[in-house]
Amino acid sequence: MLENRNINVCLVSDLFENYPLSENTIVVVVDLLRATTVISTAFNFGIKEIIPVSSLEIAKTYLNKKDYIVAAERNAMPIEGFDYGNSPFQYMNNEILDKTLVLTTTNGTKAISIASEYEVITSCFINIDAVEDLLLNSKKDVLILCSGWKGVFNLEDTIFSGCLANKLISSQKFNVNCDSTLAALNLYNLAKHDYFSFLSNSAHRKRLKSLNIEKDTVFCLTPDFKSNIIPTLENGKLVARKI
Amino acid sequence: MLENRNINVCLVSDLFENYPLSENTIVVVVDLLRATTVISTAFNFGIKEIIPVSSLEIAKTYLNKKDYIVAAERNAMPIEGFDYGNSPFQYMNNEILDKTLVLTTTNGTKAISIASEYEVITSCFINIDAVEDLLLNSKKDVLILCSGWKGVFNLEDTIFSGCLANKLISSQKFNVNCDSTLAALNLYNLAKHDYFSFLSNSAHRKRLKSLNIEKDTVFCLTPDFKSNIIPTLENGKLVARKI
Repeated sequence: MLENRNINVCLVSDLFENYPLSENTIVVVVDLLRATTVISTAFNFGIKEIIPVSSLEIAKTYLNKKDYIVAAERNAMPIEGFDYGNSPFQYMNNEILDKTLVLTTTNGTKAISIASEYEVITSCFINIDAVEDLLLNSKKDVLILCSGWKGVFNLEDTIFSGCLANKLISSQKFNVNCDSTLAALNLYNLAKHDYFSFLSNSAHRKRLKSLNIEKDTVFCLTPDFKSNIIPTLENGKLVARKI
Repeated sequence: MLENRNINVCLVSDLFENYPLSENTIVVVVDLLRATTVISTAFNFGIKEIIPVSSLEIAKTYLNKKDYIVAAERNAMPIEGFDYGNSPFQYMNNEILDKTLVLTTTNGTKAISIASEYEVITSCFINIDAVEDLLLNSKKDVLILCSGWKGVFNLEDTIFSGCLANKLISSQKFNVNCDSTLAALNLYNLAKHDYFSFLSNSAHRKRLKSLNIEKDTVFCLTPDFKSNIIPTLENGKLVARKI
């Protein structure tokens, strides 16, 4: 059924306000390497809720509180004094069950904060199918918001956006009137047969490689499990919405 | 000779400040459809200098001054009361010889203004070879600045940036550590055999088509003359630098 809904891809969170937004917009935040992959992993392993915070100072106020885990990352590295960092593998354990995760990262939590006046969900390859179902069955316009890297475009969020946009557009429910959506679709088509090779020269894959955490990159691009949980922002917290 | 110079592509002028910049950076402003094509056309037909201004109000103060031509465009349309608009065909005449052009457009003149603290030149397909020569023979880092459309990414400036970046990188004088440069190169490679078809769904080609000025698009993508003039910002004015 032709619904003529709008789909846009915002390639860097700093450009968010320049895109068409309304009460009828769902914002899908993407920080594939690694914040939104961490978020989906943590929910899959039983975290109760996630509080994204913008600064290390705010995150610190949650340290040593019962039933809270506090995770921090800057420039792809964990921060001393915090319980966890930004590697999805850290969250694959039973200790996080029913806890609240307080999370601050370089880009992903900033993007969530920028979009927080709208309906916000987060996505990555772990929950892309569930997100597709939710978006197709809603009547809403979609803005896929790439977190980018410190205000700069990145390839990994863009190819993920192209993958999700490609699934949505094939439904015939969306109009594409947005050049960044066309760019994301084209780049996804170039990358889809081997994301890892396509990203071999990308800035963040090189950054993670230099930190010896390339296994994180492999997991974020090709996770070995799927989840039907859609992290959804409610009153400043991400909660688990299942479809 | 390996010079290890940096090359970056900034995909939207609103992101300019997020990219690495120094006194050693040349900024190449691109607004392919149509401001930087108009600028190259006007210099080719003998305009003496061009004053890019940000507002219609400032542009109006130059109306009816001897030896000045005042041109204005907003949302791809000319503005009533001004001498010229933003079509390159308007500048292919002898009336502009030795005059000063005062120009205000939706995106291109804004991008020039944003970068004005740095060394600024403008480029388009008319002078791309001359710009390539200038950049290769300088020792400077290069930032290609896409004007975009009202703070939003566009395809035409991106594929032009990919074309110019491709020429520069083949010299081995540049390091690519920038995902937006990689994206521009990939999109250029998809587009290079037929820019016009590649842009068939792009927002601005559709916009110009709806205004019956598709011949402008054809000219900007495949101009029928070349120029060795490099419009260069000096004291707030673009002047003709020849190489």
